Amino acid sequence: MVIQDMTREMSTEVLKGTHLGRIACAQDAQPYIVPFFFAYHDRFIYSFATAGTRVEWMRANPLVCVEVEKIAGRHEWQTVVIFGQYQELPETPEFHEERVFAHDLLARTEMWWEPGYVKTLHRGIERPLQHIFFRILIDQISGHQGIAG
Amino acid sequence: MVIQDMTREMSTEVLKGTHLGRIACAQDAQPYIVPFFFAYHDRFIYSFATAGTRVEWMRANPLVCVEVEKIAGRHEWQTVVIFGQYQELPETPEFHEERVFAHDLLARTEMWWEPGYVKTLHRGIERPLQHIFFRILIDQISGHQGIAG
Repeated sequence: MVIQDMTREMSTEVLKGTHLGRIACAQDAQPYIVPFFFAYHDRFIYSFATAGTRVEWMRANPLVCVEVEKIAGRHEWQTVVIFGQYQELPETPEFHEERVFAHDLLARTEMWWEPGYVKTLHRGIERPLQHIFFRILIDQISGHQGIAG
Repeated sequence: MVIQDMTREMSTEVLKGTHLGRIACAQDAQPYIVPFFFAYHDRFIYSFATAGTRVEWMRANPLVCVEVEKIAGRHEWQTVVIFGQYQELPETPEFHEERVFAHDLLARTEMWWEPGYVKTLHRGIERPLQHIFFRILIDQISGHQGIAG
Protein backbone atom coordinates (compact mmCIF):
# COMPACT_ATOMS: atom_id res chain seq x y z
CA MET A 1 0.00 0.00 0.00
CA VAL A 2 1.12 3.55 -0.75
CA ILE A 3 -0.06 6.48 1.40
CA GLN A 4 -0.33 9.80 -0.43
CA ASP A 5 -1.08 13.39 0.55
CA MET A 6 -4.35 14.71 -0.87
CA THR A 7 -4.83 18.20 -2.26
CA ARG A 8 -7.15 20.70 -0.57
CA GLU A 9 -9.65 20.17 -3.42
CA MET A 10 -9.67 16.37 -2.95
CA SER A 11 -10.07 16.79 0.82
CA THR A 12 -12.99 19.17 0.30
CA GLU A 13 -14.66 16.62 -2.00
CA VAL A 14 -14.55 14.05 0.82
CA LEU A 15 -16.22 16.57 3.18
CA LYS A 16 -18.96 17.29 0.64
CA GLY A 17 -19.79 13.61 0.21
CA THR A 18 -19.91 12.66 3.90
CA HIS A 19 -22.08 13.69 6.84
CA LEU A 20 -20.73 11.47 9.62
CA GLY A 21 -17.43 12.41 11.24
CA ARG A 22 -15.75 12.69 14.61
CA ILE A 23 -14.92 15.82 16.54
CA ALA A 24 -12.34 16.14 19.30
CA CYS A 25 -12.11 18.87 21.88
CA ALA A 26 -9.70 19.15 24.82
CA GLN A 27 -9.77 20.26 28.43
CA ASP A 28 -6.34 20.85 29.92
CA ALA A 29 -4.29 18.02 28.41
CA GLN A 30 -7.21 15.56 28.00
CA PRO A 31 -8.68 15.15 24.49
CA TYR A 32 -12.26 13.85 24.03
CA ILE A 33 -13.69 12.42 20.76
CA VAL A 34 -17.35 12.03 19.81
CA PRO A 35 -18.98 11.04 16.52
CA PHE A 36 -21.17 13.76 15.01
CA PHE A 37 -23.29 14.59 11.98
CA PHE A 38 -22.32 17.63 9.98
CA ALA A 39 -22.77 19.49 6.72
CA TYR A 40 -19.91 21.31 5.05
CA HIS A 41 -20.30 24.69 3.39
CA ASP A 42 -17.61 27.15 2.32
CA ARG A 43 -15.17 27.70 5.22
CA PHE A 44 -17.41 26.03 7.81
CA ILE A 45 -18.66 22.71 9.13
CA TYR A 46 -22.18 23.04 10.55
CA SER A 47 -23.58 20.76 13.23
CA PHE A 48 -25.61 20.56 16.41
CA ALA A 49 -25.13 18.93 19.80
CA THR A 50 -27.03 18.34 22.99
CA ALA A 51 -25.87 20.26 26.05
CA GLY A 52 -23.21 18.31 27.94
CA THR A 53 -19.51 17.75 28.49
CA ARG A 54 -18.53 18.28 24.87
CA VAL A 55 -20.26 21.67 24.56
CA GLU A 56 -18.86 22.83 27.91
CA TRP A 57 -15.34 21.89 26.83
CA MET A 58 -15.67 23.62 23.42
CA ARG A 59 -17.04 26.78 25.04
CA ALA A 60 -14.03 26.87 27.36
CA ASN A 61 -11.52 25.96 24.62
CA PRO A 62 -12.71 26.48 21.03
CA LEU A 63 -9.76 24.62 19.41
CA VAL A 64 -11.11 21.41 17.88
CA CYS A 65 -10.15 18.71 15.41
CA VAL A 66 -12.56 17.05 12.96
CA GLU A 67 -11.82 13.74 11.26
CA VAL A 68 -13.75 12.26 8.33
CA GLU A 69 -13.03 9.01 6.56
CA LYS A 70 -14.16 7.18 3.45
CA ILE A 71 -13.09 3.57 3.60
CA ALA A 72 -13.69 1.37 0.57
CA GLY A 73 -11.27 -1.35 1.70
CA ARG A 74 -8.09 -2.07 3.58
CA HIS A 75 -5.93 -0.60 0.83
CA GLU A 76 -8.38 1.96 -0.52
CA TRP A 77 -9.31 4.74 1.85
CA GLN A 78 -9.26 8.51 2.32
CA THR A 79 -9.09 10.43 5.59
CA VAL A 80 -9.42 14.15 6.11
CA VAL A 81 -8.30 15.99 9.25
CA ILE A 82 -9.31 19.56 10.07
CA PHE A 83 -8.00 21.92 12.72
CA GLY A 84 -10.63 24.54 13.47
CA GLN A 85 -12.46 26.73 15.93
CA TYR A 86 -15.83 26.18 17.62
CA GLN A 87 -18.37 28.97 17.11
CA GLU A 88 -21.74 28.62 18.79
CA LEU A 89 -24.89 29.80 17.02
CA PRO A 90 -27.09 30.82 19.96
CA GLU A 91 -30.82 31.62 19.80
CA THR A 92 -30.32 35.37 19.61
CA PRO A 93 -31.43 37.82 16.87
CA GLU A 94 -27.76 38.34 15.94
CA PHE A 95 -27.30 34.66 15.02
CA HIS A 96 -30.83 34.02 13.70
CA GLU A 97 -29.81 33.95 10.04
CA GLU A 98 -26.84 31.65 10.65
CA ARG A 99 -29.01 29.28 12.73
CA VAL A 100 -31.64 29.06 9.97
CA PHE A 101 -28.86 28.47 7.42
CA ALA A 102 -27.34 25.70 9.58
CA HIS A 103 -30.74 24.06 10.16
CA ASP A 104 -31.66 24.09 6.45
CA LEU A 105 -28.25 22.84 5.36
CA LEU A 106 -28.34 19.98 7.88
CA ALA A 107 -31.98 19.17 7.04
CA ARG A 108 -30.95 18.50 3.42
CA THR A 109 -28.61 15.67 4.48
CA GLU A 110 -29.74 12.05 4.49
CA MET A 111 -28.58 11.53 8.07
CA TRP A 112 -30.71 14.34 9.42
CA TRP A 113 -33.29 13.84 12.11
CA GLU A 114 -35.02 16.70 13.88
CA PRO A 115 -33.09 16.97 17.16
CA GLY A 116 -36.39 17.02 19.05
CA TYR A 117 -37.07 13.41 18.04
CA VAL A 118 -34.21 12.10 20.12
CA LYS A 119 -34.68 11.09 23.74
CA THR A 120 -31.89 10.16 26.11
CA LEU A 121 -32.20 7.57 28.82
CA HIS A 122 -29.59 8.01 31.52
CA ARG A 123 -29.67 5.42 34.29
CA GLY A 124 -33.26 4.68 33.27
CA ILE A 125 -34.41 8.31 33.63
CA GLU A 126 -35.53 10.21 30.54
CA ARG A 127 -33.66 13.52 30.25
CA PRO A 128 -34.92 16.58 28.42
CA LEU A 129 -32.40 17.61 25.76
CA GLN A 130 -31.28 21.13 24.93
CA HIS A 131 -30.05 21.52 21.35
CA ILE A 132 -27.15 23.73 20.41
CA PHE A 133 -26.29 24.64 16.83
CA PHE A 134 -22.65 25.38 16.14
CA ARG A 135 -20.15 25.64 13.33
CA ILE A 136 -16.43 24.97 13.03
CA LEU A 137 -14.35 27.58 11.25
CA ILE A 138 -11.80 25.60 9.20
CA ASP A 139 -8.27 26.86 9.89
CA GLN A 140 -6.37 23.97 8.31
CA ILE A 141 -7.39 20.95 6.26
CA SER A 142 -5.28 17.98 5.19
CA GLY A 143 -6.03 14.62 3.67
CA HIS A 144 -4.32 11.30 3.08
CA GLN A 145 -5.25 8.37 0.91
CA GLY A 146 -4.19 4.77 0.79
CA ILE A 147 -3.81 3.08 -2.59
CA ALA A 148 -3.01 -0.57 -3.25
CA GLY A 149 0.45 -1.00 -4.79
CA MET B 1 -34.62 7.28 18.61
CA VAL B 2 -33.62 6.60 22.21
CA ILE B 3 -29.98 6.97 23.33
CA GLN B 4 -28.95 4.69 26.19
CA ASP B 5 -25.85 4.27 28.34
CA MET B 6 -24.05 0.96 27.78
CA THR B 7 -22.55 -1.15 30.55
CA ARG B 8 -18.79 -1.72 30.77
CA GLU B 9 -19.35 -5.30 29.54
CA MET B 10 -21.29 -4.15 26.46
CA SER B 11 -18.64 -1.52 25.70
CA THR B 12 -15.88 -4.14 25.99
CA GLU B 13 -17.77 -6.40 23.55
CA VAL B 14 -17.71 -3.58 20.96
CA LEU B 15 -13.91 -3.23 21.43
CA LYS B 16 -13.41 -6.99 20.97
CA GLY B 17 -15.36 -7.03 17.71
CA THR B 18 -13.71 -4.01 16.07
CA HIS B 19 -10.17 -3.19 14.96
CA LEU B 20 -10.62 0.23 13.38
CA GLY B 21 -11.00 3.23 15.67
CA ARG B 22 -9.82 6.79 16.10
CA ILE B 23 -7.31 8.13 18.59
CA ALA B 24 -6.99 11.74 19.72
CA CYS B 25 -4.00 13.33 21.41
CA ALA B 26 -3.50 16.97 22.38
CA GLN B 27 -0.71 19.52 22.39
CA ASP B 28 -1.43 22.56 24.51
CA ALA B 29 -5.14 23.18 23.83
CA GLN B 30 -5.17 21.68 20.30
CA PRO B 31 -6.61 18.15 19.91
CA TYR B 32 -5.63 15.96 16.92
CA ILE B 33 -7.56 12.87 15.70
CA VAL B 34 -6.26 10.07 13.49
CA PRO B 35 -7.85 6.76 12.51
CA PHE B 36 -5.89 3.71 13.71
CA PHE B 37 -5.97 -0.08 13.79
CA PHE B 38 -5.90 -1.71 17.19
CA ALA B 39 -6.45 -4.92 19.11
CA TYR B 40 -7.98 -4.95 22.57
CA HIS B 41 -6.72 -7.18 25.37
CA ASP B 42 -7.42 -6.96 29.09
CA ARG B 43 -6.78 -3.38 30.28
CA PHE B 44 -5.01 -2.32 27.09
CA ILE B 45 -5.48 -1.31 23.48
CA TYR B 46 -2.48 -2.33 21.37
CA SER B 47 -1.46 -0.59 18.18
CA PHE B 48 1.41 0.77 16.11
CA ALA B 49 2.16 4.03 14.37
CA THR B 50 4.75 5.55 12.10
CA ALA B 51 7.00 8.22 13.57
CA GLY B 52 5.46 11.65 13.18
CA THR B 53 3.35 14.38 14.77
CA ARG B 54 1.00 12.00 16.57
CA VAL B 55 3.79 10.04 18.28
CA GLU B 56 5.64 13.23 19.24
CA TRP B 57 2.46 14.66 20.80
CA MET B 58 1.67 11.44 22.72
CA ARG B 59 5.25 11.22 24.02
CA ALA B 60 4.96 14.78 25.34
CA ASN B 61 1.40 14.31 26.70
CA PRO B 62 0.29 10.69 27.23
CA LEU B 63 -3.40 11.54 27.84
CA VAL B 64 -5.41 10.25 24.88
CA CYS B 65 -8.97 9.45 23.88
CA VAL B 66 -10.01 6.46 21.74
CA GLU B 67 -13.37 6.25 19.96
CA VAL B 68 -14.84 3.16 18.34
CA GLU B 69 -18.20 2.89 16.61
CA LYS B 70 -20.43 0.15 15.22
CA ILE B 71 -23.07 1.67 12.97
CA ALA B 72 -25.80 -0.59 11.58
CA GLY B 73 -28.09 2.29 10.63
CA ARG B 74 -29.22 5.79 11.50
CA HIS B 75 -31.17 4.58 14.52
CA GLU B 76 -29.06 1.54 15.40
CA TRP B 77 -25.54 2.28 16.51
CA GLN B 78 -23.07 1.87 19.37
CA THR B 79 -20.15 4.13 20.23
CA VAL B 80 -17.47 3.56 22.83
CA VAL B 81 -15.19 6.28 24.21
CA ILE B 82 -12.06 5.58 26.24
CA PHE B 83 -9.87 7.91 28.25
CA GLY B 84 -6.41 6.40 28.61
CA GLN B 85 -2.66 6.78 28.70
CA TYR B 86 -0.10 6.25 25.94
CA GLN B 87 2.66 3.77 26.74
CA GLU B 88 5.35 3.18 24.14
CA LEU B 89 6.77 -0.31 23.63
CA PRO B 90 10.33 0.46 22.48
CA GLU B 91 12.82 -2.00 20.98
CA THR B 92 14.62 -2.68 24.25
CA PRO B 93 15.09 -5.98 26.14
CA GLU B 94 12.77 -4.67 28.90
CA PHE B 95 9.83 -4.33 26.49
CA HIS B 96 10.68 -7.31 24.25
CA GLU B 97 7.93 -9.55 25.59
CA GLU B 98 5.25 -6.83 25.38
CA ARG B 99 6.30 -5.98 21.80
CA VAL B 100 6.05 -9.63 20.73
CA PHE B 101 2.66 -9.85 22.46
CA ALA B 102 1.42 -6.69 20.68
CA HIS B 103 2.73 -7.90 17.29
CA ASP B 104 1.11 -11.34 17.63
CA LEU B 105 -2.19 -9.92 18.87
CA LEU B 106 -2.35 -7.39 16.01
CA ALA B 107 -1.26 -10.01 13.45
CA ARG B 108 -4.34 -12.10 14.35
CA THR B 109 -6.69 -9.29 13.25
CA GLU B 110 -8.16 -9.18 9.74
CA MET B 111 -7.03 -5.58 9.22
CA TRP B 112 -3.39 -6.35 9.87
CA TRP B 113 -0.68 -5.64 7.40
CA GLU B 114 2.99 -5.89 8.21
CA PRO B 115 3.95 -2.25 8.84
CA GLY B 116 6.95 -2.69 6.53
CA TYR B 117 4.66 -3.11 3.51
CA VAL B 118 3.48 0.47 3.70
CA LYS B 119 5.26 3.23 1.83
CA THR B 120 4.50 6.92 2.18
CA LEU B 121 4.73 9.39 -0.63
CA HIS B 122 5.10 12.93 0.65
CA ARG B 123 5.21 15.60 -2.03
CA GLY B 124 6.21 12.87 -4.46
CA ILE B 125 9.19 11.69 -2.41
CA GLU B 126 9.16 8.22 -0.90
CA ARG B 127 9.87 8.36 2.84
CA PRO B 128 11.31 5.54 4.88
CA LEU B 129 8.95 4.73 7.77
CA GLN B 130 9.91 3.98 11.34
CA HIS B 131 7.37 1.83 13.19
CA ILE B 132 6.49 2.31 16.80
CA PHE B 133 4.46 -0.17 18.83
CA PHE B 134 2.42 1.26 21.69
CA ARG B 135 -0.47 0.48 23.97
CA ILE B 136 -3.14 2.57 25.67
CA LEU B 137 -3.82 1.85 29.32
CA ILE B 138 -7.61 2.16 29.71
CA ASP B 139 -8.46 4.51 32.60
CA GLN B 140 -12.14 5.00 31.80
CA ILE B 141 -14.54 3.44 29.30
CA SER B 142 -18.09 4.45 28.45
CA GLY B 143 -20.55 3.53 25.71
CA HIS B 144 -23.79 4.78 24.24
CA GLN B 145 -26.23 3.14 21.90
CA GLY B 146 -29.03 4.43 19.74
CA ILE B 147 -32.18 2.35 19.40
CA ALA B 148 -35.17 3.10 17.15
CA GLY B 149 -38.22 3.99 19.19
